[in-house]
Amino acid sequence: MISPVIFIFSLLLSSSQAAVQDFCVADFEFPESPAGYACKKPAAVTVNDFVFSGLGIPGNTSNLIKAGVITAFASDFPGVNGLGISMARADIAVGGVIPFHTHPGASEVLLVVEGTVFAGLVSSTNEVYTQTLQKGDIMVFPQGLLHFSLNAGNSTAVEFVSFSSATPGLQFVPFALFGNDLPTDIIAATTFLDEAEIMKLKAILGGTG
Amino acid sequence: MISPVIFIFSLLLSSSQAAVQDFCVADFEFPESPAGYACKKPAAVTVNDFVFSGLGIPGNTSNLIKAGVITAFASDFPGVNGLGISMARADIAVGGVIPFHTHPGASEVLLVVEGTVFAGLVSSTNEVYTQTLQKGDIMVFPQGLLHFSLNAGNSTAVEFVSFSSATPGLQFVPFALFGNDLPTDIIAATTFLDEAEIMKLKAILGGTG
Amino acid sequence: MISPVIFIFSLLLSSSQAAVQDFCVADFEFPESPAGYACKKPAAVTVNDFVFSGLGIPGNTSNLIKAGVITAFASDFPGVNGLGISMARADIAVGGVIPFHTHPGASEVLLVVEGTVFAGLVSSTNEVYTQTLQKGDIMVFPQGLLHFSLNAGNSTAVEFVSFSSATPGLQFVPFALFGNDLPTDIIAATTFLDEAEIMKLKAILGGTG
Amino acid sequence: MISPVIFIFSLLLSSSQAAVQDFCVADFEFPESPAGYACKKPAAVTVNDFVFSGLGIPGNTSNLIKAGVITAFASDFPGVNGLGISMARADIAVGGVIPFHTHPGASEVLLVVEGTVFAGLVSSTNEVYTQTLQKGDIMVFPQGLLHFSLNAGNSTAVEFVSFSSATPGLQFVPFALFGNDLPTDIIAATTFLDEAEIMKLKAILGGTG
Amino acid sequence: MISPVIFIFSLLLSSSQAAVQDFCVADFEFPESPAGYACKKPAAVTVNDFVFSGLGIPGNTSNLIKAGVITAFASDFPGVNGLGISMARADIAVGGVIPFHTHPGASEVLLVVEGTVFAGLVSSTNEVYTQTLQKGDIMVFPQGLLHFSLNAGNSTAVEFVSFSSATPGLQFVPFALFGNDLPTDIIAATTFLDEAEIMKLKAILGGTG
Amino acid sequence: MISPVIFIFSLLLSSSQAAVQDFCVADFEFPESPAGYACKKPAAVTVNDFVFSGLGIPGNTSNLIKAGVITAFASDFPGVNGLGISMARADIAVGGVIPFHTHPGASEVLLVVEGTVFAGLVSSTNEVYTQTLQKGDIMVFPQGLLHFSLNAGNSTAVEFVSFSSATPGLQFVPFALFGNDLPTDIIAATTFLDEAEIMKLKAILGGTG
Repeated sequence: MISPVIFIFSLLLSSSQAAVQDFCVADFEFPESPAGYACKKPAAVTVNDFVFSGLGIPGNTSNLIKAGVITAFASDFPGVNGLGISMARADIAVGGVIPFHTHPGASEVLLVVEGTVFAGLVSSTNEVYTQTLQKGDIMVFPQGLLHFSLNAGNSTAVEFVSFSSATPGLQFVPFALFGNDLPTDIIAATTFLDEAEIMKLKAILGGTG
Repeated sequence: MISPVIFIFSLLLSSSQAAVQDFCVADFEFPESPAGYACKKPAAVTVNDFVFSGLGIPGNTSNLIKAGVITAFASDFPGVNGLGISMARADIAVGGVIPFHTHPGASEVLLVVEGTVFAGLVSSTNEVYTQTLQKGDIMVFPQGLLHFSLNAGNSTAVEFVSFSSATPGLQFVPFALFGNDLPTDIIAATTFLDEAEIMKLKAILGGTG
Repeated sequence: MISPVIFIFSLLLSSSQAAVQDFCVADFEFPESPAGYACKKPAAVTVNDFVFSGLGIPGNTSNLIKAGVITAFASDFPGVNGLGISMARADIAVGGVIPFHTHPGASEVLLVVEGTVFAGLVSSTNEVYTQTLQKGDIMVFPQGLLHFSLNAGNSTAVEFVSFSSATPGLQFVPFALFGNDLPTDIIAATTFLDEAEIMKLKAILGGTG
Repeated sequence: MISPVIFIFSLLLSSSQAAVQDFCVADFEFPESPAGYACKKPAAVTVNDFVFSGLGIPGNTSNLIKAGVITAFASDFPGVNGLGISMARADIAVGGVIPFHTHPGASEVLLVVEGTVFAGLVSSTNEVYTQTLQKGDIMVFPQGLLHFSLNAGNSTAVEFVSFSSATPGLQFVPFALFGNDLPTDIIAATTFLDEAEIMKLKAILGGTG
Repeated sequence: MISPVIFIFSLLLSSSQAAVQDFCVADFEFPESPAGYACKKPAAVTVNDFVFSGLGIPGNTSNLIKAGVITAFASDFPGVNGLGISMARADIAVGGVIPFHTHPGASEVLLVVEGTVFAGLVSSTNEVYTQTLQKGDIMVFPQGLLHFSLNAGNSTAVEFVSFSSATPGLQFVPFALFGNDLPTDIIAATTFLDEAEIMKLKAILGGTG
Repeated sequence: MISPVIFIFSLLLSSSQAAVQDFCVADFEFPESPAGYACKKPAAVTVNDFVFSGLGIPGNTSNLIKAGVITAFASDFPGVNGLGISMARADIAVGGVIPFHTHPGASEVLLVVEGTVFAGLVSSTNEVYTQTLQKGDIMVFPQGLLHFSLNAGNSTAVEFVSFSSATPGLQFVPFALFGNDLPTDIIAATTFLDEAEIMKLKAILGGTG
């Protein structure tokens, strides 16, 4: 049976309109493409695909960096697939830090909603731009550039960060260098660091070799 | 058996050339991606994929708006899939109108081929740009902005419109507001319209609630 | 005089590296291009270009809609120019509403940081997706589609919204229809609304004609 | 003095909203960028920027190819600048032809509005796709591929063509090869054509050397 | 069993991080999309996907054009899929030539690594730009424009060419015109060439009709 | 005076064709935009804009890393502006290295033309992909990901690298961390490195503070 509105609407529009998609909610059953996940059929989409509640719960800060990051990328939040936007939340306990990292696929805007944060970025010409941010301040990190933030206050800081891609990626420099089996002599040659220092960090961050 | 030309050509070019695609004719058997439909295998493509005759027949104008719209989007015309372009045709009887609408995914160029049309668009800063268009005139509507057209003459008007996307989308404001089950009080609060007026339009356009 | 680091770095790299830009901070002195504002010279860029504090102050809600919106688009926040991202803040008093609107140039993610919000979007096929959002919830609105939000609680609600463009645009349906000099008969024909209703709303929203 | 609507609107929105652009009408006074022409200031934009009447007049067919092409690219029609769309009109007298050409920067959809046209395209793998098109038929030519059309009837044919770019470009093979001073021996070596044939065509098409 | 580094890393990051892809190595089992091939699952990716050795071997120059082209497009080299880049190698024997051609989907930079090459391009306005290139010289050919190169020295020339797309396409003008079954009279009408010349070239290049 | 070819061509084409650009050669006199440099007027463009000879000369390897990099980005080679492609050359003496770095704005394909190179990349999930490359081998590094290369042979190695952008950027991790005035305690907190190690590297790489 066809609803009255569809009937009225279809008098006006002769097309395969039903197949036209304004969005592409991720369907994880099929392989990805360079543009993102396959699209769920429109009829199967519900409001729950457009809403994500996972950022409402503080991240766990009982770890090495006293900080927890929760992502709402396309792999977590299917509604943003193909829309060029996503978010994440970072909770940073007193003394905590989000180590130096890049997002290979997106620019980021960081919003402080609780506490005080000291954040910085470094440009290709090695210029440093740092600032202490208070609640309500936002700071932008251009795509692919190294940046960091840390708790600069006496209470837990909370950040909500937005990205210009549904799949921004996230590469932490210390984990990329010291958290895998890349040989110590290669790391030394390509970073100028001492081998002893590298081995010490591998022990902390889980690297081998 | 291999044809002579392929043989001569293959002496020149050592590659998987046969797999290289200059186009991506839509294959509706597979799920869509954010970039469009999956591609038909090149060997299965024929000239019929690149030609569409559906715009040669006038749209049916025996309806509420005295106008009929026929689309040649990727869902109708598989050859435009992935190519950033599509078309549609609108026939507008005397007294007919294409109500206020947007194309969320594309800019449009409207071409008048028969009759006289009065068309307009509104910018984000609420500026209005209107013009009476004659046969051969074209008018551009930037992506996502509200616009309309109506028959301003004494005979049927015919428009051919082109879009900067194979899936431009089409959202009619009256149908989006009054042609579904969005509660009347919510519509009133978010549009400033009176509830009585909303209920009257719901009755006309098929909305409920 | 050249700094030691530049000297060491320049031994390694023979290029016009100084001219390479990782970002394009807006310089409002020159005309815009379709890709955004012209770029400030890198030497003139400071951390203040990357930080914006304007969203830390509540928007003024003493108005018709009991809500205030503060934008951090490229025209407000030069650091996001060209980076495909921007933000805004909305404060919504009890009973307040952000009326039906679109962003012609961007998808949006809405984050609730205080209070309770009822939000919704309508697709091209006139499907309605609505949800009540609590603190920490996020909801995505695909590019160009009609959406709204309103305070559904007993205290002021605060939203921070992110966009997939530095210049998302913002078109409120009631202001676009009733806040300018578009003739009443044209509005009636293209929306199905009664002329009396239109004239009433023009009086409220500042429209003429 | 500020208008009432701006005043009401500004109570709602605290921003540099006036500077936000939904479009970028070309300002030919400034140099182009890779994304198109510079933008005219919004206050200077009128409806005439969005309307183009040049395609309403038949092209002159009193020439070698018995066909005339009129373009509505961004350089002709400033309103399409930056919007990823443009148009052109071709009038083809009986016996006339639009020679083999490509659009380096855009896909094209050809619409026949008068007469009968025989059109074709060649793919990278040298497959040929040809069709006779009647009034109302459309045919798509993927970006950069060689294609042509010619009058296949007994009366003047008229085509309106749309492009997926405001600056599609247009490179006619015969003019590119024989309409300039590229040396005859180089043309012979790179096309397999006889030098006598090349010199004959240079004489027709204005080439030298 | 989970590795120590994953364990440490996962304390920091609560997400479906394992599913986030920085790349999309082509999986030829699934259909293509307009954005390229489907992505291999990250766990199945090895360094061999990122390395291609096929360009280390000279192309076969024992053919009509005394030149051989080897491509490293996405269909040959799955690691470049979705990354907007690819390469090819051309070996040109003495007297050899790479005939007039276009890449419908990419701009190209040609690098000479051995020998002397004479190369040229033609613009949409039929301007010719030619140069003799020595080892180490590079020349750029803008997307979609006709260009060629030939050996201008006394030893084999070797070029490595890079493209701004993983699927640049490659359309040789002589093969597109004379290497298929496009009727001779149509070719004559759309190129101004004599029918005798066309038939002669069809015989050489494998065309029929 | 008008040339014969322009005259013949203009009979065919009624347009501002002269203004249509297939390319946008950089004009450094005007400010950049997010899409690249302003375009030189077509009439001023010569073949020298499309050719760059700077990569024909070996880079100077008498430095800390025993390697020299020469770039052909848009700032060096105006012809690639806006075309989504550029190149660079690296000469690496025996024992030399190209330290860990990223290109924030582009994917890269590395081609070895002399010697033996050991190269590697690290993904967002900290997977390492390394390979020894011989002459003619190519390896792709996806946009924004950390990678390195070093001479793994007994003679100078030469690489030509291509990028998927005219302005790829280049951020060396050691210089970004230790080659500026970022405070030592901040570096320690955000990298896990010891302060003594950081100060040692600052002394080598020119950093202060």
